[in-house]
Parts: sequence; structure tokens; C-alpha cells
Amino acid sequence: MTDTQEMLETVPTGVPLSSADLAAAIDACLRCAQTCTTCANADLAEEDVAELRVCARLCISCADVCDVTARILARPAQWDEFVVHRLLEACVRSCQNSADECARHAHHHLHCAICEKGCRACARACSDLLQDETFAQLQKLAGA
Amino acid sequence: MTDTQEMLETVPTGVPLSSADLAAAIDACLRCAQTCTTCANADLAEEDVAELRVCARLCISCADVCDVTARILARPAQWDEFVVHRLLEACVRSCQNSADECARHAHHHLHCAICEKGCRACARACSDLLQDETFAQLQKLAGA
Amino acid sequence: MTDTQEMLETVPTGVPLSSADLAAAIDACLRCAQTCTTCANADLAEEDVAELRVCARLCISCADVCDVTARILARPAQWDEFVVHRLLEACVRSCQNSADECARHAHHHLHCAICEKGCRACARACSDLLQDETFAQLQKLAGA
Amino acid sequence: MTDTQEMLETVPTGVPLSSADLAAAIDACLRCAQTCTTCANADLAEEDVAELRVCARLCISCADVCDVTARILARPAQWDEFVVHRLLEACVRSCQNSADECARHAHHHLHCAICEKGCRACARACSDLLQDETFAQLQKLAGA
Repeated sequence: MTDTQEMLETVPTGVPLSSADLAAAIDACLRCAQTCTTCANADLAEEDVAELRVCARLCISCADVCDVTARILARPAQWDEFVVHRLLEACVRSCQNSADECARHAHHHLHCAICEKGCRACARACSDLLQDETFAQLQKLAGA
Repeated sequence: MTDTQEMLETVPTGVPLSSADLAAAIDACLRCAQTCTTCANADLAEEDVAELRVCARLCISCADVCDVTARILARPAQWDEFVVHRLLEACVRSCQNSADECARHAHHHLHCAICEKGCRACARACSDLLQDETFAQLQKLAGA
Repeated sequence: MTDTQEMLETVPTGVPLSSADLAAAIDACLRCAQTCTTCANADLAEEDVAELRVCARLCISCADVCDVTARILARPAQWDEFVVHRLLEACVRSCQNSADECARHAHHHLHCAICEKGCRACARACSDLLQDETFAQLQKLAGA
Repeated sequence: MTDTQEMLETVPTGVPLSSADLAAAIDACLRCAQTCTTCANADLAEEDVAELRVCARLCISCADVCDVTARILARPAQWDEFVVHRLLEACVRSCQNSADECARHAHHHLHCAICEKGCRACARACSDLLQDETFAQLQKLAGA
């Protein structure tokens, strides 16, 4: 589908986790960043913008957190497990916040319905990495 | 494939161009940003890093330019054609720079071979938008 | 004041322009990105959010364009004049857009008054670089 | 000095912490992002790039983490303490990593000496926020 996994496997230091799971999380972060960016933009163009202001604020920040998480995950050489762990936790929470708020508007705004789906997928992919056993051990070594 | 086009079509102001072409450019930017980020990281882990330093520098900047281009393209409400035009031009050039340098290393570094492909695809998708006739007219109106 | 100019002068390839002007533009971009980020956040918390939606959208995008412009300007090794030129033009326009819209709300929202000032300063610093004679010559060589 | 604190104080929801401390952290993040961006660029232009590859990799990621931390801190409306907490922790660690590596090269590369200083200042400013008592209480409420 995407080149993400193939790229990760070319890094000479190797990838500290399953490259398939890592690629899935990176791709989910990029898709969620895209969806949240457009959702916030659409919120600000709706008649009921006053009801959507929380959604816009959450989606704007979620996009930024997903963006940096994708960047850091995409650099397997010089990975610091503590940094990765904290970013993944921040990303899961940001995605949950956006998804929960989007869910409140999903029945009358299609962008919120699509965005909720993208946020939930990203939260799940990042949670999967956090629950990976190898990652848990690496974190301990890194004092995370 | 991705939700990008479907999301763009939900924005109440409408999309100033073909939403399919716009979505293709956004997705190409995101993929190129990802590939360049990992390529630069891999460059810095290779034994011949001294030969790859130009590649690393170009890919780092290309990732940043693709990232912001994707963000701006993903906000069809309040589009400024002049800003979009200049970013697309910067993006095409950055992608060409990275692709040409990656091509020099593609035979002995797989990450450069994959990255070259991603950069060429992004340059093409952004060039397509630049050559769109509707976009050309919008730019004239915006004084671009 | 900041370390920006001193840092630029340590890059072994040298800086293609006046390091003082370049540092001034970088610092103005960073300050403008900060101000626009907070202005958009404040817009979304105001009672008259419906009147501020254009301001929020412009400031969100202006922050992103300033951010990438600062990043690219901060990498004097491997500068591509064409890329730098297009980003500076996009940045000047984004700042003017935000400043003009903030000016409409400056009398009743202090964040818009401060943000207008930051945007105008950034537009000026980036315009100064664009009008630099050395830069004009470099652009010609780079086909910009 | 900067407009950061004044801007924060205009946000109608109020700032959950001392606006002076928050502004200090934002400004330190922006300065550190700038310094790390240029340090990595300089590393890649040095003759001993093979010895500086770890420094470049750490500084590239530190710049990204500082950038997103500054963005999230700059949006006091809709702050999620859990997200802020995790980003601050990731930022402190990233800054320490870069500072420690820069320290190894500071005697023969001025950019590393300046960058070490910027990273230590940012780590300190973010640590100060983490140790703020009000913030500690907010985190507990947010389940952080």
C-alpha cells in the first residue's frame, strides 16, 4: 500500500519493533493528521461554528501531535524509547479527545464522522505499539 | 484508499479545484514527507555518511516543505491561491532536488531508491495542480 | 538577544546573505508563528467566534507557513534559492492576510492587536530578505 | 522581550498556570528548535560528519519535539493536562539527549556549544512547568 514499512526496513540500525506495526502507526498518524486538519477547517466554515469550536481546537492540536509522532516514529536510528513512549501516550489521548468530540457532531457533519473514524484508528495503532512487549522492555531499559 | 478526497468534499465552502487531484497531491506530500524523513535518518546511519550528507540535508528540508504543503492544501476554506501557488512551486523544486540526489545513491542504498520514487510522485502530483486551468485562473485573480 | 545570528555564523559553508538580516527574519517568523497560534486559539474561545472564523483560519495557516520558513532559513548549508524565494513570498502573503484580518478586530480583541503587529513585523523582515541584492542575484542563478 | 506572555493573557478562558512560566517555556522551546535545526545543518557540513551523526539525529528530533511542545503550550484554551504533561516530559528528555551529545563536541564546534546551552535552558524551563504545583494537581484531575 504505502512504502512506509519497506522504508523502515532499509535503516541500517534495524527497527526496534515489528516494522509492520510501526509502519501501521506512522500511516495512521499521517492519515489522522490530514483528517483533523481538514475537519478543523470545515468546522470553521460551518454555520454552527459556535457549537464546533471545541472540535476545531481539539482537531488542530491532534493534527500537530500526530504529525510529530509520525516524524519521530519514522526515525528508527537513534530512537529514544522514553521520548517515543511519551509521544505515543500524548497521541493516543489527543486522538481520543478528538474522536469523542467528533462523535457528538457525527450525525449532522460528515467531516466529524470521517474524522472520528481516523482518530479511533490512530489511537488504536499507537496503543498497539504501547502494548508491544518488546517496546515495554526497551522502555524499562530507557527509564521510561 | 485514503479518506482525503471524501474529507475535502465535506468542507462547506467547496473545493476550488478537482477534489481528486487535490487529494492526490495531499497524499503524495504526506507519503513523500514520510519517505524523506526516514531516508535522512538512514543516511545518517550509513557507513558512507560523508557521501550522503547532501542527500540528508535535502531530504530533511523536503520533508518539511511537503508537510506544510499538505497542511495548506488540506484547508480548502480560506485558500489563498498565491500562497498555495508558491508552496506548490517550492514543493516541486524540493522534491526534484531530493529525487536527483537520491538517484545518485539509488543503486547501493535501497532507501534512496524508494525515496527517489516518492519524491518524483510528489513532484508530479504538485505539478499537475500547478498546471490545472482553473487554478491558473484563480491565481491570476489573486495576483499570483 | 537570541542566539540565531551567532548560530548561523557557525555553519561551515557560510551564510549566503547578511547573517543579521537572516537571523532577523527567522526570529520574526518564530514570533509570528507563536502569536498566530495563540490568536487562533483565543478566537475560538471568544463569544463572537462566528465573526472571528476568518481570522482563525488565516492565523492557523500563517503559523504553519512561518514555521516552515523559519526552518528552511535556519539551514544555510544546502540552501536552494528558488525554494527559499517561494517560501518567503508565501510567508509575506500569509502574514499580510492575517495582519489585515486581525486589524479588523484589533479594537475589541487585544490578541488581534498584538498579532497584527507580529504579522506586520514578519512580513517586513521577509520582504527585506526578498529585496536583498545578493539574494536577487542568487535567485537568478538558481532559475527562481 | 517577546509578546508571548502578553498574548497568553488575552485568551478568554484564562491560562491554567503562571503565564510568565508558560511564556518562558514556549520561548525556550522556540529558541531550542531554532538552535537544534541549525546545529544539525552545520553537523552535516563539517568534515567530521561521521563523528557528528548522532548529534545531527538527536538535534533533528529535538527540534521537532520542541516545535510541537511550543504549539501545544501556546493554546491555553482546550488544554489537556495529560497531553501537555507527556509532551513536556518528551521535550525535557529530547533536550537532555541533544545537550549531552552536543557537550561532547562543544570544545571544537561552536554550534554544539551554543546548542548545548539552548537545550539545557529549554529542559530547565519545561522541567519548571512539570514541577509547578498547580500543574501537578491539574494532571491528577486529568488522569495523567
